[in-house]
Amino acid sequence: MSGGPEIEQLIQLLARLPGLGPRSARRAVLHMIKKKEQLMLPLSAALDRAVAAVRTCEICGNVDTASPCSICSDPRRGESGILIVVEDVSDLWALERAGAGQVRYHVLGGVLSPLDGIGPDDLNLDSLARRAGDYSEIVLAMNATVDGQTTAHYITDRLGPGAKVTRLAHGVPIGGELDYLDEGTLSQALRARTQI
Amino acid sequence: MSGGPEIEQLIQLLARLPGLGPRSARRAVLHMIKKKEQLMLPLSAALDRAVAAVRTCEICGNVDTASPCSICSDPRRGESGILIVVEDVSDLWALERAGAGQVRYHVLGGVLSPLDGIGPDDLNLDSLARRAGDYSEIVLAMNATVDGQTTAHYITDRLGPGAKVTRLAHGVPIGGELDYLDEGTLSQALRARTQI
Ligand SMILES: [Zn+2]
Ligand SMILES: [Zn+2]
Repeated sequence: MSGGPEIEQLIQLLARLPGLGPRSARRAVLHMIKKKEQLMLPLSAALDRAVAAVRTCEICGNVDTASPCSICSDPRRGESGILIVVEDVSDLWALERAGAGQVRYHVLGGVLSPLDGIGPDDLNLDSLARRAGDYSEIVLAMNATVDGQTTAHYITDRLGPGAKVTRLAHGVPIGGELDYLDEGTLSQALRARTQI
Repeated sequence: MSGGPEIEQLIQLLARLPGLGPRSARRAVLHMIKKKEQLMLPLSAALDRAVAAVRTCEICGNVDTASPCSICSDPRRGESGILIVVEDVSDLWALERAGAGQVRYHVLGGVLSPLDGIGPDDLNLDSLARRAGDYSEIVLAMNATVDGQTTAHYITDRLGPGAKVTRLAHGVPIGGELDYLDEGTLSQALRARTQI
């Protein structure tokens, strides 16, 4: 072990982030230390600030620094009448980057997965049922996985025939995850959404 | 932009670490936020502690939480009489992981590079010349790059014929960087070092 316990612990924690392993975490920490003033100190301060500021939106489940989040508290976002249901906050952010427009979101916090023991009560489905009546269209933007599509069917059944439920257009690759798509494909898939 | 300014700033700073880009930094931050108690808070605390603790060793240039570093202040490390000269702290750590043994190090802080305007005065060469007399063997463990080998020649000339100067054995791939080598190759290259 090199660098002392404080540095070693920082490396071990960084290595738990997606996309980083032990080796890249070590490189990242050495890079930080070399750029202590320009990078390590600002990063430390930014992380402290983010820890203090981060909130989960009580309405939609988005991650922001206020609750309700900036999307839920923006009245223009309600005018389209469109509510997009996503599995995860990363999908919400991906749709925002793709220019989804003046829409609102609902973050399920996962998908139904009997194998993993994840049932309806583990997802934000009751709050979706409560919100759905305020919107003229519910866009299901689940990942194109078996569990994602199972979840979409469950929601369609639960919301009943009174709701206009659509899904993203084909274009999302089978087995693919929204967050990895290029923004053009994702934007097109949203525009060409079809009624279920 | 999603997530508020504090989160956005954290993403931008993380994206400046080697191995992370804007997309992976965003995923890393969302992962952190989801695991706020288990990961984000400990990481924030670990980074604060590392910032406060980190020191550059006044003798060898290693990064540690004390100066002189744990290697320079360990008397057993001096008994072999071997001083290994490396470009960078990451190379020192790589050699330690490879089990270099009871040796000491000298971190140059780079290599001579006329194209980049890096000359002898920009590296820790004067302090190397002062330390060299205390060691029976100076192992030059530069990267197998043109600049690395130029630097090795410069050091050999500067230390003069009185010093026993060796280099790592061939086995380091041409153009390769020490920090990316597997530990077995690196360990073997060190054992089979040859006199220059
Ligand atoms: Zn919200
Ligand atoms: Zn030292």
